[in-house]
Amino acid sequence: MSDDPFIKSLLTLIRAQDSSGAWETMSDEELLAPFIVTKEQRREIPIMGDPDPDILWRVELYYNAIAFAIEKATGCAASPIMKIHHEGWGRMLLTCGKLVVVNSYLRDLHRFGFDDVASMSTKATKIIAEAAAVIAKFPEVAAA
Amino acid sequence: MSDDPFIKSLLTLIRAQDSSGAWETMSDEELLAPFIVTKEQRREIPIMGDPDPDILWRVELYYNAIAFAIEKATGCAASPIMKIHHEGWGRMLLTCGKLVVVNSYLRDLHRFGFDDVASMSTKATKIIAEAAAVIAKFPEVAAA
Repeated sequence: MSDDPFIKSLLTLIRAQDSSGAWETMSDEELLAPFIVTKEQRREIPIMGDPDPDILWRVELYYNAIAFAIEKATGCAASPIMKIHHEGWGRMLLTCGKLVVVNSYLRDLHRFGFDDVASMSTKATKIIAEAAAVIAKFPEVAAA
Repeated sequence: MSDDPFIKSLLTLIRAQDSSGAWETMSDEELLAPFIVTKEQRREIPIMGDPDPDILWRVELYYNAIAFAIEKATGCAASPIMKIHHEGWGRMLLTCGKLVVVNSYLRDLHRFGFDDVASMSTKATKIIAEAAAVIAKFPEVAAA
């Protein structure tokens, strides 16, 4: 798990927010645990009311780690902008220069999570690869 | 004033939100009045605390009217995304396809407003022209 560059970035970003030192004794697995929501668990989470702010914080961390990986892979700094309605749906953009490299529509964020760490990384890696392909296609826009 | 295409779009968008009919008897000047904040008034508005939600609503309307005008001028539908911290600063993007056509950093939104209707329109028209120029430069990205 610690070899996966996306998971490494995500853990770096999570630990960077540990301003009180409370998570220093926690293992990587413990820090990633809230990102893992199995299909069965997901089905049991109601999508009524507002999702927990901690979930929105995890969504931001997840996309920030993607932005970080895009910058590592392409050299283009990716800047995130997320607009989430309090009921748990919205939109997340990552931009490099004048180029939109990731455009995700999000919904039912109450249930945000992944089956396991491997599938979280697979999904992120796919988004990162697509962003790198868009940058390779329009390099002058990404630099604009 | 009613000849100005930007001001016309803005008034259309404002009146479209009048679900109760309360503004039907109001003149265009009355509807635009909250957008006008003179330099003297601006100086007197404290930038402590959170700006009034009505101000953020006006900022959204202003940029929606710009998006509307960009679509009219270029045929490319511009999609807005605004992320504002509750203390009154943030970022506003308009995107066409994969192209960022407007990228505005906003601050001190407590004082959002323009010296007069003419200068509001001049500023918006400049943003619209810049967006149209970016679209003309990268048409395949705007269509992506």
